[in-house]
Amino acid sequence: MIIKLHQTHHTLADFKGVLNYLDNIPKESKEVLHIFPELFLTGYPLKDLCLTQPFIEAYEKFLIKIREWALKRDPTEIFLLGGLAFEKTDSGLPLKIRNVIWMVQKGVLSDIYTKRLLPNYDIFDEKKYFTAGDESKIVNIHGFNVGMMICEDMWPSSIHSFDPGADFHQDLQKNNKTIDLLVNLSASPFNIGKQEKRIARGLELSSAFGVPFLYVNRVGAEDEVLFDGQSFVAQSPDILLQGKLFESQVLNFELKKRGSKLSEYNIKSENTWENLFAASLIKKKPLPQIHKLTNEDLSDIKKALEFGFQDYARKCGFNKFTVALSGGIDSALVLTLIRLSLKPNQSVEAIYMPSQYSAGLSYELSNSLCQNLGINLYSLPIKFYHATMKNNFLDIFGQPLEGLANENIQSRLRGSLLYTRSNMINSMVVNTSNKSELAVGYSTLYGDSVGAISLIGDLYKSEVYDLARYLNILHPGIIPAGIIDRAPSAELRENQKDEDSLPAYSRLDAILEGILSYRLSLKDLQEMGFDEGELKKVFNLYAKSEYKRYQFCPIIKIKAKSFGFGYRIPITKDHQFYY
Amino acid sequence: MIIKLHQTHHTLADFKGVLNYLDNIPKESKEVLHIFPELFLTGYPLKDLCLTQPFIEAYEKFLIKIREWALKRDPTEIFLLGGLAFEKTDSGLPLKIRNVIWMVQKGVLSDIYTKRLLPNYDIFDEKKYFTAGDESKIVNIHGFNVGMMICEDMWPSSIHSFDPGADFHQDLQKNNKTIDLLVNLSASPFNIGKQEKRIARGLELSSAFGVPFLYVNRVGAEDEVLFDGQSFVAQSPDILLQGKLFESQVLNFELKKRGSKLSEYNIKSENTWENLFAASLIKKKPLPQIHKLTNEDLSDIKKALEFGFQDYARKCGFNKFTVALSGGIDSALVLTLIRLSLKPNQSVEAIYMPSQYSAGLSYELSNSLCQNLGINLYSLPIKFYHATMKNNFLDIFGQPLEGLANENIQSRLRGSLLYTRSNMINSMVVNTSNKSELAVGYSTLYGDSVGAISLIGDLYKSEVYDLARYLNILHPGIIPAGIIDRAPSAELRENQKDEDSLPAYSRLDAILEGILSYRLSLKDLQEMGFDEGELKKVFNLYAKSEYKRYQFCPIIKIKAKSFGFGYRIPITKDHQFYY
Repeated sequence: MIIKLHQTHHTLADFKGVLNYLDNIPKESKEVLHIFPELFLTGYPLKDLCLTQPFIEAYEKFLIKIREWALKRDPTEIFLLGGLAFEKTDSGLPLKIRNVIWMVQKGVLSDIYTKRLLPNYDIFDEKKYFTAGDESKIVNIHGFNVGMMICEDMWPSSIHSFDPGADFHQDLQKNNKTIDLLVNLSASPFNIGKQEKRIARGLELSSAFGVPFLYVNRVGAEDEVLFDGQSFVAQSPDILLQGKLFESQVLNFELKKRGSKLSEYNIKSENTWENLFAASLIKKKPLPQIHKLTNEDLSDIKKALEFGFQDYARKCGFNKFTVALSGGIDSALVLTLIRLSLKPNQSVEAIYMPSQYSAGLSYELSNSLCQNLGINLYSLPIKFYHATMKNNFLDIFGQPLEGLANENIQSRLRGSLLYTRSNMINSMVVNTSNKSELAVGYSTLYGDSVGAISLIGDLYKSEVYDLARYLNILHPGIIPAGIIDRAPSAELRENQKDEDSLPAYSRLDAILEGILSYRLSLKDLQEMGFDEGELKKVFNLYAKSEYKRYQFCPIIKIKAKSFGFGYRIPITKDHQFYY
Repeated sequence: MIIKLHQTHHTLADFKGVLNYLDNIPKESKEVLHIFPELFLTGYPLKDLCLTQPFIEAYEKFLIKIREWALKRDPTEIFLLGGLAFEKTDSGLPLKIRNVIWMVQKGVLSDIYTKRLLPNYDIFDEKKYFTAGDESKIVNIHGFNVGMMICEDMWPSSIHSFDPGADFHQDLQKNNKTIDLLVNLSASPFNIGKQEKRIARGLELSSAFGVPFLYVNRVGAEDEVLFDGQSFVAQSPDILLQGKLFESQVLNFELKKRGSKLSEYNIKSENTWENLFAASLIKKKPLPQIHKLTNEDLSDIKKALEFGFQDYARKCGFNKFTVALSGGIDSALVLTLIRLSLKPNQSVEAIYMPSQYSAGLSYELSNSLCQNLGINLYSLPIKFYHATMKNNFLDIFGQPLEGLANENIQSRLRGSLLYTRSNMINSMVVNTSNKSELAVGYSTLYGDSVGAISLIGDLYKSEVYDLARYLNILHPGIIPAGIIDRAPSAELRENQKDEDSLPAYSRLDAILEGILSYRLSLKDLQEMGFDEGELKKVFNLYAKSEYKRYQFCPIIKIKAKSFGFGYRIPITKDHQFYY
C-alpha cells in the first residue's frame, strides 16, 4: 500500500485550517494510508486551553465536521490523525483527556490508541492534562498489521516506570505474533542533536520489530518551542526517507512486504536521565564544555531561529520589525538573521540610540552593517534626555544620578524610545539578549532586555560569535569584522568592558553550561579546574538574577536545556547552598 | 502524650535556619510528639532546585547534621519532619525523589511514609519531581497508633485515580484494626475560602477514623504562593485548636484517649474538578458572579497581601519601597497597604509623574493620601520629556507621535523614571496593576505594568474598591473619598475614561470571572444575559493580551484561579474558537 506521511504545520486551535487541509487531500481509489502527527487536529502544546469550555466546545463541533468529512472519503483511504478524546462528566466537564490516534476507515472515525508514556519533564506537563493509555495496539490496515505509538512511547527512560516498546514486543513474542509496520505519530520539539537520537532509536525499533518504522512529526513554532518536522522512515539499518527541517511536506512510502521476524529488543539510545538533564559529567569531571557547534549545527540553528522568528511574527500579525543596534555583536547578529529571513511583504529597521558613553565606532559599525543589509538606520540620541534627567533628579531628590541608576536609565530610555517607534509603525520589537547575559543578569530590566521574542537567548556569547562567523561564511563580510573583533561593552559608563565585571566569556560560558545543563555544584566545577573566586561570583550573579529572567520574553528554544517554561527555579530562596 | 504542632516559617533551602530552629526546641523528658509541616526540611515548592546537584549535595550534608542533632535529643521526644528522600543512581543522579515523613525516634532518623497523592493541577507540578508512595502507614508513637498523611493525601478528587483516606480506612476495617490519631503534614497554599474546606474535610476524616485529626501547615510566601499556617486539631464535630494566619507558632495538644471506632467513610467536601477549576456553573447558567467579599474575607486578604509583600521584600533584601501614585484607586490602595504593613526599619515613598493630560485633582488627591499616610510625595513631571520626544520623533521619523504611541510613551517614561529612582536609593518598585486590567491588557508593557511584585494583581477592579472601602472602615478617611469616587482613567489622552474603551467594571469583572475561573464560552455567557458585542470585545482583548501577562511580575495569589504559574495559556494560537 501507499503511505503518505503528512508533516503538517498549523497554528494551535486552527480548526478551520486543519479541515481545509483534509478537504484538499486528493482522493485516490487505491489503497492508501495517510498518517498525521500527534495532536494534528488541535496543535500542541495546548497547555490549559484543553481545560476550557470554549476550546472543548469548539473542538467537539470540529469533530462533527471531521465525521462529515470522513463520510466523503473513498473507502480505500485510511487516515490516522493525532487528536484528543474527552471523557466528560454529566455536567460537561472534562473528567479525562486522552491523547489519541483517531482512525478514519470506511467513513467511520474512531479513536484506536491512547498514548501510554506521558512526558512530564522540562517543558512537558502532559501528566497535568492527560490520562495515559494502558495497552499496545495493532490495527489491520489494508491487510497489513500496523503497530501504533505516539511520540514519547518510543522514549523509555529511567524517569518513566515502563517501556511501551518492550511491552509491545513482549506481547507479540508471547502470542507468537508479528506486525508489518510500526508507526509513531509525534509532536517532538527541536533541539540541536535531537534528530540523530530519533534516528538511532527509530533504527533500533525497526530492528527489534523487524519492520519499517515510520515517524511523522509536526512543524511549527509554539511560542518558544519549535517543532522541526524531519519525519522519516527507518528500515534497519537504513533511513529510507527523511522530511525537511521546519517545512511542511508530504512524504510517500510504499509498503510491500508482509510478515516480519522479531529480533532481540535492545535499547542503546535510551533517553536516560542523563540525556534528558545532561548531567552525565557529574562523576566524570572533565571541564564542562559547551558542545562545540559544527557548521551543520550552525546551519540548523540559523534555520531554527529564522523559522521560530517568522512563525511567531506571523501568528502575532506583524510584518514590520524594529531592532535596537548598539554596534555590538548581539544586536548585529539579530538584525542580520531577521534581514536574511525577510519575506517580500516584510521590512526591518534599525535604531541606534547613542549616549554620552557611546564610541564613534559604534555608530560607524552600525551604519556599515545596515548598508550591508540594505536597512534604514535611524539615529536617536539619548544624550539630551539623559542630561535633562540628571539635572531633574538632582533638583527633585537633591542627590546626583550616579552608578547603577545612571547606567540603567540609559538602557531604559532606549527601551522606551524603541517601543515608541514600534507603536508608531506597528512593528514588533525583537530582543537582542544572549544566554550568557541572561544567566548572570547582565542586562537592564525594561531596558536592553525588552522585546516580543528573543532570537539568541538560547545561545551563549561564544556561540553568538560562532553564528556570526558562520553567517559571514555564507555571506562574506555581511557582518563587519569590526563588530566581531571589538571587545564587548554595554557602553553605559566610560571605558566599560564586559570582561571588567565578568569572567572572560570563554570561561563564563563553560561555567554557565556546567550550572545550567549539567546542574553541577561549585565544588564539582572547582575540582574541574575553575577558580573558586570566579565561581562564587558567577553563582552569585546567577542566583540573584532570577527575577529578571522571570519577566523576560519567550526565547526560541534550540537546546535541550533553555531558560523559559522548561526552566523552573524559584526567585526567592536562601542561596547559601550554592557556595 | 503531649503533641506540639510546629507551624513554621523558613525560606526555601534555609538549612541553617531549620537546623537552628530544631536546636532551639527545649528538651523535655516526658513523652512528646513534635509534628512539622510537609517539606519542612527543604521548603516548598522547590521546583527544579530538587534536580540540581548543588541543592542535592547541600541537602545530604544537612541530613547528616540532622542525624547528629537527633542523637542529642531525649529518647522521650519523637519528631515527624516533612522532607525529601533521594534514591540515586550509581552516578549520583536522582533516580527517584520521594516526598516523605522523616521520623526521629531514639536518635534514629528514618523515612517512614511517602506521600501517595501528588497534586499536579494549577500551580502544582509534583508528578514532575516526585514518585508517589503506595501504602498507608501506622506508626506506634509512645504507645499510640498514629496514621500518616501528607497534604494532598486528604484531598481525593475526580482528577486523582484513588483516595488514600478510603484506602487506609478499608485496610483498617479489613484487618479489624483502629488508630488513635491521624496526622497530616501539609504545605497547603492559601486562597480565600480554603480554610473552611480544610476544616470540613478534617472533620470528615476525624469522624470516619473516630480519632483526632491533626493538620500542620507551613507559613511562607514563595514568590507568588502564600502558605497561611492555620494548623488545626479536629475532633469531630469540634475544632479543638486553630493556629494563626500567616504567623509561625507552636500549638500544644494533649492526646489522652487510646482506641477508637471506625465510622462510615463519607466524603461530602470532596475536592472535585469543579472545586479545583470552579467550573460548576457551566450547566447551571446563573450569571457568573465574583464571590462577594465579606469583611472577614477582606481582613484575610489584607493580611495575605501584607504578609506576601513583606516576606518577598525580606527575601529579596529590600527595606525601601517606591510606588508610582497616579491619583487613582489602584496605586492609592497599594501604597496604603504597604504603609500599613511597614516595619520600623522600613520606608516607602511615592512618586507622582504628571503628563499634560493629568488633572490637577490627581495631584491633590495623591498629596492628600500621602499626608494621611505620612509619606513623602515627589512630583516628577514628564511633560517636558514627552514634549521633547514628540519633537524629536517628528524630526527623525518625519511623522507626528500620536494615538497609541503617544499614550504609551507617557507610561513608559514613568516606568523608566520610577526605576531610576529605585536604583538611586536601592528600593523595591511595587506594581499597581489589578486583575481586570491584566485580563484585558489595559496597561502598557514596561510602563505602568512594571514592578518587582504585584500586590493587587489577583483582585478585580471592583474588589480593589471593596478593599479600599474596607481599609477606610479600619482607618476612617485614610484613602481620600475623592480617590474612591472619581471615574477610573489612565489619563493618557484628553478626557480619557476607562469605561469609554471597556465595559463598566461591574459587568467586565463578572465576564472575566466567567472566562478565567469558570472557563465559560462566549455562548455560555451570552445565554446568561451578557451582550454579545461586549462579550466579543472582552474575549478579544483577553485573547490578544497573553504576551503582556507573560512578561508580568509575580502576583501574590489569593484566589483559587490566578494569573501566574498556575495559569498556562499559549501566547500564539488561532483564537477564532472563542467567538
